[in-house]
Amino acid sequence: MTAAIVETLIARMGAGRVSLDPSDLEAHALDWSSRALLARRAGEPSSPPIAVVRPHDATEVACVLEWAGETDTPVIPFGGGSSVVEGIGGSGHIVVDLSNFDYVSDVDTRSRLVTVGAGVTGPQLRTALESSGYLLGHEPQSHDISTVGGWVATRACGQLSAGYGGIEALVAGLEAVLPGGRTIRTKIAPRRSVGPDIGALMLGSEGVLGIVTEVTLRVTPIPEIRMDACLRFDHMRDAIAACRALAQSRLSPTLVRAYDAEDTVLLTMGLEDPPTGPLLLMSFEGDDASVRAEAAVSLAGGERLDDSIVAHWWSHRNAAVGEYTKNMSGAGLLGPHAMIDTMEVAGTWTVLRDLYHSMKERLGEHADFVTCHVSHIYPDGACLYFTLGKSCTDDEAAATSNEKWWAIGMTACLEAGGTISHHHGIGRLRARWLPDELGESFEVLRAVKAALDPQGIMNPGALGLAPR
Amino acid sequence: MTAAIVETLIARMGAGRVSLDPSDLEAHALDWSSRALLARRAGEPSSPPIAVVRPHDATEVACVLEWAGETDTPVIPFGGGSSVVEGIGGSGHIVVDLSNFDYVSDVDTRSRLVTVGAGVTGPQLRTALESSGYLLGHEPQSHDISTVGGWVATRACGQLSAGYGGIEALVAGLEAVLPGGRTIRTKIAPRRSVGPDIGALMLGSEGVLGIVTEVTLRVTPIPEIRMDACLRFDHMRDAIAACRALAQSRLSPTLVRAYDAEDTVLLTMGLEDPPTGPLLLMSFEGDDASVRAEAAVSLAGGERLDDSIVAHWWSHRNAAVGEYTKNMSGAGLLGPHAMIDTMEVAGTWTVLRDLYHSMKERLGEHADFVTCHVSHIYPDGACLYFTLGKSCTDDEAAATSNEKWWAIGMTACLEAGGTISHHHGIGRLRARWLPDELGESFEVLRAVKAALDPQGIMNPGALGLAPR
Repeated sequence: MTAAIVETLIARMGAGRVSLDPSDLEAHALDWSSRALLARRAGEPSSPPIAVVRPHDATEVACVLEWAGETDTPVIPFGGGSSVVEGIGGSGHIVVDLSNFDYVSDVDTRSRLVTVGAGVTGPQLRTALESSGYLLGHEPQSHDISTVGGWVATRACGQLSAGYGGIEALVAGLEAVLPGGRTIRTKIAPRRSVGPDIGALMLGSEGVLGIVTEVTLRVTPIPEIRMDACLRFDHMRDAIAACRALAQSRLSPTLVRAYDAEDTVLLTMGLEDPPTGPLLLMSFEGDDASVRAEAAVSLAGGERLDDSIVAHWWSHRNAAVGEYTKNMSGAGLLGPHAMIDTMEVAGTWTVLRDLYHSMKERLGEHADFVTCHVSHIYPDGACLYFTLGKSCTDDEAAATSNEKWWAIGMTACLEAGGTISHHHGIGRLRARWLPDELGESFEVLRAVKAALDPQGIMNPGALGLAPR
Repeated sequence: MTAAIVETLIARMGAGRVSLDPSDLEAHALDWSSRALLARRAGEPSSPPIAVVRPHDATEVACVLEWAGETDTPVIPFGGGSSVVEGIGGSGHIVVDLSNFDYVSDVDTRSRLVTVGAGVTGPQLRTALESSGYLLGHEPQSHDISTVGGWVATRACGQLSAGYGGIEALVAGLEAVLPGGRTIRTKIAPRRSVGPDIGALMLGSEGVLGIVTEVTLRVTPIPEIRMDACLRFDHMRDAIAACRALAQSRLSPTLVRAYDAEDTVLLTMGLEDPPTGPLLLMSFEGDDASVRAEAAVSLAGGERLDDSIVAHWWSHRNAAVGEYTKNMSGAGLLGPHAMIDTMEVAGTWTVLRDLYHSMKERLGEHADFVTCHVSHIYPDGACLYFTLGKSCTDDEAAATSNEKWWAIGMTACLEAGGTISHHHGIGRLRARWLPDELGESFEVLRAVKAALDPQGIMNPGALGLAPR
């Protein structure tokens, strides 16, 4: 049955576009979520796609989606596969791998725009832009392994969002293919009042509405100067207050992060004579970076430390990706069956301190350590990024701990008035709390989904929609 | 038939909520579009609503929409009625007037948020915020006669958008009632990655998807210092280049406007010894406003003029509303049958100069004057705001001229790669060009509309959707 369906796909697309190689299928079966990594560590069989399709352009993507509609086959779009919230799942589905969408246009220096294929990775884009003297400024921790299409589909947010904004601020327009093969392309304009923003529906859509194939992005000349500053506080509440003062000032930091005492331990690992206690890290860019950095130090209060800690952060900022993998392969410091996970939430400044204490306390009852930093700031609130770890006797205990963390963490977050995801997204992992998060808007989302994907073939199960 | 329907509405809502007073119905029959004002000038009979309903809360709005669904009655939400693009129209409909949604919460000074009813007008909000030392920073020319709900529904943009952003940047969350009485309420959070942004569908929805009832807005402390600067250029292209340099700098102006030579004449009316030629007006706010203003003058080039012209703009900035009315009542300078209209479009910097010349030249063939200013700037482009005027022999000739302007202007805009509306919206006036503007996204918009309003009762005809 499956084989017959796949034959019709090959007939439609050509054998060169469709991979049935078992290792290729396996490489597209799981993401970077804890559940997936536990499955890998335990050597459990996964539920791989029945085929991996690699179209070369939007017309070919439309062709795949037409075929999927005709054969009622579920489709999961695939960029870097680095979701940590079970963005991939189900069975009997195909994966549409966008790695052939790897082009980067010349920078339009007049309007500071670049148009890129959805499969372009962070490093590819950075290299291409650097040659023209530009940067995007979108630097999620997954930067080196994730793609532009994935950033859009998950509503990603980079570590430098204080300076450059989340991905929604950087997208000037996009092309996407919807079920049935309908292709939308937003006009590139600085701003429009031409009805509801249909292209923006793809931001955060996690593959449930269609496949992002191309994105036009706003870029910035690479700043020549960066100034760092590091401050120490006695209490996390003072570091949070400093974040708020900075976010509500006109000082335009590029980076602001506030670590609680426990997270400072993780941050400063490998440093000789590391500082203790809550730390505030800041970076400023541009000609007047040093003036603004000094003004920020005055505004924030706290004790000035050696600023090189910030440079240490810049050079190690994505190292957690490697550590995470090492842990999940059983080679981590916490032992072969350890569980480590991260949980990012957000809230207004009005609820943030309660959100911090409530989640930290309740999660702390079920983990060896719970650390937290403020990772993204806004005039009206911030993101809290928790890291949790526990030594477990076996992988089953690790899985149980993980499930408990999510149930406790999401419930505590909602009770404290927080929002359940700042930038990792929902996937399947957080789907059960999405109706609480969205209220009646969840029913509207279901209606929009049913209108655009009446068969429910796009990434069924993600966002808790139309599981098959 | 109509009377019987209205009786059921009164029975449902209570007589105190439903007005059948002819002058009240007439006052809700037309907006501020040229077509409407011509109709008023000619004393033509309008097509008023069959009733004006004034609900007091979201539950009552839901009740109205349930009734409308049961009786298949079209519904037009009404704020200030100041649309200039035929936001109101049709026949056999009711109007939902939101003037009872007139509350303003205390400012949450910690998160800098305020929650207000959709019927709150610009002056009401300004007064309420001023008492706490805050402002919104959203100042469209219609500020004094329009409402918060209208700003959201039309995706409005104020004159100070360089400093404060368009309405989309100021909305932290909203409540809206959809057909059938379903009420959505977005969680207030600085940022979320929790699926597509359903609440954002209401931005620019122009009443076709539901009724915005409440909005939570981001506010800013009133800056103590404002510095103005005025520069003169020999050519509009140099003034446009200066706008681009400012938009792509880190100087954060609050206001940037560049007038071509003809628009300078309108701008400086009433001034003794007015300057001639293209002018650039800038304002900066905050403690370092003067430093940034001086840096902007250096960056922009041009000849420095007396900065008081900018103060003149600030004090007369909404006077056009009165002039417009005067003209349309037949008492304007251009004679009793004159036609005056405005047309705002946008484009990237890459297309902007062509867009300016093409529209100016082609519109100029059919008008006594066509003036233009750059009214809103962004790193990737700007808004061009045209004002057109013509003396006409009679009102029929005035109507014909107006129709010609829109056909020529919108076509020229689309051909030059511009976007057909920056902030006035689509209404019925621009509906015929919306499919060209949106491409296949227009079909997606139709599908979303059909999903949320299957009977097509919400403002039928606006955005070119489901005319009845």
